Amino acid sequence: MAPCASLLLPLFAILATLPIIQSVPTFFPGPSYDQSLAKIPKASKPKIPYKTHYFPQVLDHFTFQPKSSKIFYQKYLVNSHYWHRGAPIFVYTGNEGDIEWFAANTGFLLDIAPKFRALLVFIEHRFYGESMPFGNKSYKSAETLGYLNSQQALADFALLIRSLKHNLSSEASPVVVFGGSYGGMLAAWFRMKYPHIAIGALASSAPILQFDDITPWSSFYDAVSQDFKEASLNCYEVIKGSWAELEALSAQKEGLAELSRTFRACQDLHSLDSVWEWLWSAFVYTAMVNYPTEANFMMPLPAYPVQAMCKIIDGFPSGASKITRVFAAASLYYNYSRAEKCFKLEHGPDAHGLHGWNWQACTEMVMPMTCSEESMFPTSSFSYKEFAEDCMKTFGVKPRPHWITTEFGGKRIDLVLKRSGGNIIFSNGMQDPWSRGGLVLLFLFGILFSFQLTINGIYCGFLRHNNS
Amino acid sequence: MAPCASLLLPLFAILATLPIIQSVPTFFPGPSYDQSLAKIPKASKPKIPYKTHYFPQVLDHFTFQPKSSKIFYQKYLVNSHYWHRGAPIFVYTGNEGDIEWFAANTGFLLDIAPKFRALLVFIEHRFYGESMPFGNKSYKSAETLGYLNSQQALADFALLIRSLKHNLSSEASPVVVFGGSYGGMLAAWFRMKYPHIAIGALASSAPILQFDDITPWSSFYDAVSQDFKEASLNCYEVIKGSWAELEALSAQKEGLAELSRTFRACQDLHSLDSVWEWLWSAFVYTAMVNYPTEANFMMPLPAYPVQAMCKIIDGFPSGASKITRVFAAASLYYNYSRAEKCFKLEHGPDAHGLHGWNWQACTEMVMPMTCSEESMFPTSSFSYKEFAEDCMKTFGVKPRPHWITTEFGGKRIDLVLKRSGGNIIFSNGMQDPWSRGGLVLLFLFGILFSFQLTINGIYCGFLRHNNS
Repeated sequence: MAPCASLLLPLFAILATLPIIQSVPTFFPGPSYDQSLAKIPKASKPKIPYKTHYFPQVLDHFTFQPKSSKIFYQKYLVNSHYWHRGAPIFVYTGNEGDIEWFAANTGFLLDIAPKFRALLVFIEHRFYGESMPFGNKSYKSAETLGYLNSQQALADFALLIRSLKHNLSSEASPVVVFGGSYGGMLAAWFRMKYPHIAIGALASSAPILQFDDITPWSSFYDAVSQDFKEASLNCYEVIKGSWAELEALSAQKEGLAELSRTFRACQDLHSLDSVWEWLWSAFVYTAMVNYPTEANFMMPLPAYPVQAMCKIIDGFPSGASKITRVFAAASLYYNYSRAEKCFKLEHGPDAHGLHGWNWQACTEMVMPMTCSEESMFPTSSFSYKEFAEDCMKTFGVKPRPHWITTEFGGKRIDLVLKRSGGNIIFSNGMQDPWSRGGLVLLFLFGILFSFQLTINGIYCGFLRHNNS
Repeated sequence: MAPCASLLLPLFAILATLPIIQSVPTFFPGPSYDQSLAKIPKASKPKIPYKTHYFPQVLDHFTFQPKSSKIFYQKYLVNSHYWHRGAPIFVYTGNEGDIEWFAANTGFLLDIAPKFRALLVFIEHRFYGESMPFGNKSYKSAETLGYLNSQQALADFALLIRSLKHNLSSEASPVVVFGGSYGGMLAAWFRMKYPHIAIGALASSAPILQFDDITPWSSFYDAVSQDFKEASLNCYEVIKGSWAELEALSAQKEGLAELSRTFRACQDLHSLDSVWEWLWSAFVYTAMVNYPTEANFMMPLPAYPVQAMCKIIDGFPSGASKITRVFAAASLYYNYSRAEKCFKLEHGPDAHGLHGWNWQACTEMVMPMTCSEESMFPTSSFSYKEFAEDCMKTFGVKPRPHWITTEFGGKRIDLVLKRSGGNIIFSNGMQDPWSRGGLVLLFLFGILFSFQLTINGIYCGFLRHNNS
């Protein structure tokens, strides 16, 4: 019942609305409304023209069985408006979604492209968007999904970038990789593993330390809670108290019926889980996109949406129930445009099969998460045994919980980066709950990193460095 | 017919005595005598006690299909005689052969172990020695061999080292990796790809630039030839002229019969190829192990065996044929101990199936090689098309000729290493033909690398560095 996610999709569990979530609620607490990538509004299309290309990509870079060399077509977008040959190439290392969505929401690259006369390239991650190695059978089973993981994705990027540079006769162009969330992890790891291809990386909101026991398991939800607490102590307390109120109501006769009405459910609710998950998603994703301006990445939202939510909660007369308040707050997330007449709190049977991240979470991306007493969510623990059992049941696969830190490191990463790769900007807003699993805390604790002063300055720095 | 190898086993084609070699002589010019790993003399057993262990290793680190998680047992040797907890761990990254052989022939590690109170670990490479993922069916087909490649091997090392340190409660122990030949390439690449696990590497005779067009394709055989030319111009000219003399003789009636007698073949020869390959192997491998002391790595040999060979060639009376001279010289390689009454120049039908390197050469380790007019071998060119056809015919696999340089880099590697990993000692004797594909030439051309002054000094340096 606990809405705290032991595995959270890095940025958009919102995309992973699958029935499997229902069967493993503790570990796949995806939202219970019918929202999927396929429904991304047209406004998410890139605002400047990108030319779409498809690269013949190798299915398996790390084995050489006859079937390993199967080719699939990987989508990538190119804007050469500002570019001249030999100038830098800025590559967005796509994450778990349609690449056009990322292209539409990565303004920084567009902002700096003219200054550097840079070529912009957005590469879609295998098994997302249109880049399906087995077409519409890509998600069929562990046999096909087996090829979906970060190392294969990094190798895809390497092969594509090398080919692109060759075809453009621009082998000397410095390449800088960019990414946010899981894409940020990929950007950082790409620079670490392929320093001969990328001279630097901007890894935004990239929780590369959210593995093993490097980051305290409760830190993510503590950070979400802290955001709300900072906006308003009362707001935090209302949300924290709402779960028990919901549970008590649902235990009553006709409780679910009342909840269905209160939450304006399009269809009668069958369990409290969907309400919890609906609220949980609203609070967690709003904390993730608590941007200082109006934006429309996850959902259309006003500037500082956490503060806006708390204003709603605090604005009720003193006698109002916590349930009424949290519903109103969550409605800001789901219905800022006020277009929705009712909410689809439970999955329909035909929810879209975009559960790629759940697969990744069940194989390599094992990020243990708990909710502490300090969080505004019900407390929860993490049991690796249960998690592994759920993954086996859902996907027929056993997680490798220590693989990411074996492959990419994590412990004492500050020293490792200092002595090896470097040239990676880890950029996090401190209100971003993912900052706790990123490298920002290292700054706070004074364990050096000399970069991240002014991003622009550093870009100039390492581009000059490469060209010198 | 040309004995020049477009694909040469890095150190010991000697191990790859398979019938397939006969079917693709141009690309798999392995020696034609019956010598294999299984026949390594007992003298090759490690001289100091190593305890043998077997690590439960994951079959495929980079896919997550149900079968990927199959476990096989990877052999490794440990000597803890000098070690105390927290002291360095020196790891030999095993290459294409039985790990005991490498342990027996890597004296440097033993020499420095007491000084550093180091733990010594020799890890066997998957698909070699006893570390067979599919038991005696490991070499059955491309389906099983598909898992044999360098990236999987590096991941094996990473997993094993991490587990070992954990089990020894020595997570803070600095790890330095060592390797020679292909093992040296692995050591260098391991430091580059896993800087969070290894703080440095000694890559001895590691031709990591022998790919694509980074190193001139003729450089390897030019270097072999140069070694002989430096020993004696006449010796070089006799060898260079011997191939035509052999060809002329074999074209005569009874020519092969005469060659069988001259070369003391145990069985009548069926083609000139085997004679060429037998000679070719003797000259090439002797150049590779032209050590200043008596040694027994490939074969028992005197100090400076190239010079010894040339002394034999030059010592004949002036009327002696070139054929007689080169046979006598090659006999030094095959019969220094004078125990052989005859030579097995052609493969027997039951030659041992240790052709792992041929598989690797046909997939990722594509090292184009040619013989120039300057070499002492018949001139030859390299046709990728023919090579790929042969690989498809032999293994049912298509090579990926640019994969190694995509995965590990190569071009401008001096700059890449300077700005990223570093802490790698590339050690080559300049007479070693593999030095041309290594990083030593960079020194010669003045393109910096500040290390390799005194090896010991540097070790002290980077161990202190890590402990500080």
